[in-house]
Amino acid sequence: MKHSDAPASMSRRELLTLIGSVAGGAVSYRAMAGMGLTTPSNYQGPIKLEGNPKGATVLILGAGIAGMVAAYELRNAGYKVQILEYNNRAGGRNWTLRGGDSYTELGGFTQKCEFDKGLYINPGPWRIPHHHQGLLDYCRRLGVALEPYVQVNYNAMVHSSRAFGGQPRRFREVQSDYQGHIAEMLAKVTQQNKLDEHVTKEDQEMLLESLKDWGALDKNYAYAPGRESSDRRGFERPPAGGLSAVPIHSKNIIPFDQLLQSRLWAAIGAGQNYEMQTMLFQPVGGMGRIGDAFKREVGDLIHYNAKVTQIKQETKKVTVTYVDTVKGGAPQTMTADWCLCTIPLSILSQIDVDVGPKMQAAINAVPYAASTKVGLQFKRRFWEQDEHIYGGITYTDLPIRVIAYPNTGYHEAGKGVLLGGYMFGPNAFEFTSLPPAERVRKAVEYGAQIHPQYKTEFDNGIAVSWHRVPWTLGCLGVWTDQARAEHYENLCQIDGRVLLAGEHASYIPGWQEGAVLSSIDAITRLHKRVTA
Amino acid sequence: MKHSDAPASMSRRELLTLIGSVAGGAVSYRAMAGMGLTTPSNYQGPIKLEGNPKGATVLILGAGIAGMVAAYELRNAGYKVQILEYNNRAGGRNWTLRGGDSYTELGGFTQKCEFDKGLYINPGPWRIPHHHQGLLDYCRRLGVALEPYVQVNYNAMVHSSRAFGGQPRRFREVQSDYQGHIAEMLAKVTQQNKLDEHVTKEDQEMLLESLKDWGALDKNYAYAPGRESSDRRGFERPPAGGLSAVPIHSKNIIPFDQLLQSRLWAAIGAGQNYEMQTMLFQPVGGMGRIGDAFKREVGDLIHYNAKVTQIKQETKKVTVTYVDTVKGGAPQTMTADWCLCTIPLSILSQIDVDVGPKMQAAINAVPYAASTKVGLQFKRRFWEQDEHIYGGITYTDLPIRVIAYPNTGYHEAGKGVLLGGYMFGPNAFEFTSLPPAERVRKAVEYGAQIHPQYKTEFDNGIAVSWHRVPWTLGCLGVWTDQARAEHYENLCQIDGRVLLAGEHASYIPGWQEGAVLSSIDAITRLHKRVTA
Repeated sequence: MKHSDAPASMSRRELLTLIGSVAGGAVSYRAMAGMGLTTPSNYQGPIKLEGNPKGATVLILGAGIAGMVAAYELRNAGYKVQILEYNNRAGGRNWTLRGGDSYTELGGFTQKCEFDKGLYINPGPWRIPHHHQGLLDYCRRLGVALEPYVQVNYNAMVHSSRAFGGQPRRFREVQSDYQGHIAEMLAKVTQQNKLDEHVTKEDQEMLLESLKDWGALDKNYAYAPGRESSDRRGFERPPAGGLSAVPIHSKNIIPFDQLLQSRLWAAIGAGQNYEMQTMLFQPVGGMGRIGDAFKREVGDLIHYNAKVTQIKQETKKVTVTYVDTVKGGAPQTMTADWCLCTIPLSILSQIDVDVGPKMQAAINAVPYAASTKVGLQFKRRFWEQDEHIYGGITYTDLPIRVIAYPNTGYHEAGKGVLLGGYMFGPNAFEFTSLPPAERVRKAVEYGAQIHPQYKTEFDNGIAVSWHRVPWTLGCLGVWTDQARAEHYENLCQIDGRVLLAGEHASYIPGWQEGAVLSSIDAITRLHKRVTA
Repeated sequence: MKHSDAPASMSRRELLTLIGSVAGGAVSYRAMAGMGLTTPSNYQGPIKLEGNPKGATVLILGAGIAGMVAAYELRNAGYKVQILEYNNRAGGRNWTLRGGDSYTELGGFTQKCEFDKGLYINPGPWRIPHHHQGLLDYCRRLGVALEPYVQVNYNAMVHSSRAFGGQPRRFREVQSDYQGHIAEMLAKVTQQNKLDEHVTKEDQEMLLESLKDWGALDKNYAYAPGRESSDRRGFERPPAGGLSAVPIHSKNIIPFDQLLQSRLWAAIGAGQNYEMQTMLFQPVGGMGRIGDAFKREVGDLIHYNAKVTQIKQETKKVTVTYVDTVKGGAPQTMTADWCLCTIPLSILSQIDVDVGPKMQAAINAVPYAASTKVGLQFKRRFWEQDEHIYGGITYTDLPIRVIAYPNTGYHEAGKGVLLGGYMFGPNAFEFTSLPPAERVRKAVEYGAQIHPQYKTEFDNGIAVSWHRVPWTLGCLGVWTDQARAEHYENLCQIDGRVLLAGEHASYIPGWQEGAVLSSIDAITRLHKRVTA
């Protein structure tokens, strides 16, 4: 049945029940989403490329997520596929650095990762929101095990070098106190009748009740030391067992003015952003497990160490020229009926690409962001052992911005690796300009302001500055609204026999889901063209 | 050094740095906690029972967490220990029901658990807050693997049968909209100068800036359809890739009055309560893994199927009478120098116990709460497959109160088990009065109002009503403030040669941490007495 068949007088629930009983729950939920509720994902399940491509060939440039999704689906649909990849590994920015790995950046600095067995850092993406259903579905189909990624940890720190004498606070203290003060303030003006023009008296009563509950206010609608606030911000001495078990309530609520001026409130909304809301996932063993899984499927199609130097179109074919960066020798060519190019625009804009002026302008229009990630190995998991911080993120106004604790291997003895910094913007430029060892050293120096244990427990580190990553020259494409308006549609067209995919060809920049959905969109349109 | 040695002019940070450099990071953090910041736990690490008990014997009643902690530590300290346990298994309320298990409640109803291999439900405790350091430390020491327990899932549902035509909303919609409306309201009165008596002009500016950020307000300080609110509450069509990737913002913000009257706001603070704050854990494979681990350590000390009928004291010994509930026969006795009794007060108050009137009054003073948990197996994990709900909890005003999704085995094919209801109070009484099969049937009927898939996907279920659990007659001891004042200290004393432990002898009722800390406190005092 179509929705329009429903009688006009039917309630939404009646309609849903009807749809549900006719067509099963999944349909009912999709119908619900269609009636104006938020919907988590545009992903519609595994794509079905029906119709015979009659031996059409596709040359894919880049064995990152976008390229391998396309290769996997196009081969399944009957295409003949090849992939050219610059690196000697598959995955692209889906990348995990482990002990024994080495990495050479622009300028020739080579870092050898010296982490212990099983420990790793993801220089690129490191989390998967639950609504990134395209990527998650490939994890499911390809057997990539997932575990929760922890964004918010109430026991982690929030730190400003300019507030509270540089002493970090616990996330829960800042979160509870900000919310408590807000609730108290609004309760106050409500009781002073200052909301009368905005809220009816009846609703004001319910508002007060809700503020008391939500803001942990006491019976006088105050956010004050006592049971209610301690049950949020924690205790000076928590409840315990036997004798001497009586809790001592927290007396140290941060005064509202100090809290406001500290700017620590800026950290507490992080986990409320759509992309950071629970559930989030990470692959067990590192983000690179997804690239590994795709490689198991399409690895036989990949030509590694292939640096593309030219993309040339003729009426019925595309010719791509590349050099083998290991074997060297004369440039080689490969031809195909179609070319799906997933090379980052930062690189592609420097290659001789035979596309129309509109797509070329789009390729040239997108700058790439600088970022630096620093992985630090410590002799022990002191954040768990000393501070009971299991996973999640500490926020700071220092250039490192965050310290992110491993969301796996909880309670393990032995060494531990955390993310010692994730810099963006000016701080990333500054870190990028340093030799890798200096980046690590500075991350340790900054982090020690929050965790004094750094000084004695630091073991070794590795730092990836994305502007110096030879095959991306940046971590993600930065679209302004103006650039979107002018260039985005042109970037995503099929230009003769060439079309593009990747996070840059999406509205989800910097996320693997952008690569997946742009790839699916591109090959769906390509297939339509081929089978038309 | 002691804190008092520090010069008065020293800043807290200087002091911490000094302590840190002298004594290492762990000490520094304990010092920090001592200076008025909230401290996560009273647990001070593995207890050290120094001094020779010279062959003293201890009879422990109950092989739950409190009893097994005591047995483990006392034997390590040189005591001769025995345990009498009513059940034919160790763990007590630390209990996981798996396929093949059977359970007979008061009145004789026997349920056989028909879950598929690997699927389970925890009728008792099911989560471990990160600050329950006593229990967590035993997990670490005994090798119990942990995984994150998910309390808050923004994509789970919040449901009221009396609001929005009974249609559930997503947690994120309610959370975002409530917070957004609150922020908008407070911004409005700030701009109308109605906060002038409470907040300085300078702080008002910072307040407005913070409200905009935290409340997802737009440039006019309104919580309105658009980018900011959609980045919290979700999208009507989320951003995607390639062409047709432009997001459509959510237009359906819940009006403030409707949201207030719906009472759905009552659900959004759950994860902000100290005991529910991230990180929380669950043992991999079910809560019962902790009991299993203790049993590996002290199982050789346990006499199963032993129903205690009398505890008798003499000057130098304690004699406990018990019957073997399987073999039957005449009552048997066991004697020891000391008796640590962890039997729930609901049971203990019905046993002939030879203690003074004060402890006896305490034993009689604590009623036990009713609760019911229902585990439901479905033919598939429809909550993940259809609705992208991975773990966490849906809240409802229906008697089932919650639907809690499994925080493990994400993406697994095959059947799945969720917690289909966790009733307290009057609803628990109502469910307790029903035969188990009816409890399951009703949980399915209620749950189907939220998940229509219940109707076609339900497979089988099991229901534990704690008032009918023969060995506890309730799920936890309910202390009022008055009862605490009158009886708690008396309950925790050493009465001659008898002392008590368990969650009932703690300020953390219903949590395993209460059992652990009360046990540690009890045996520490006992050991002092013995070695004095």
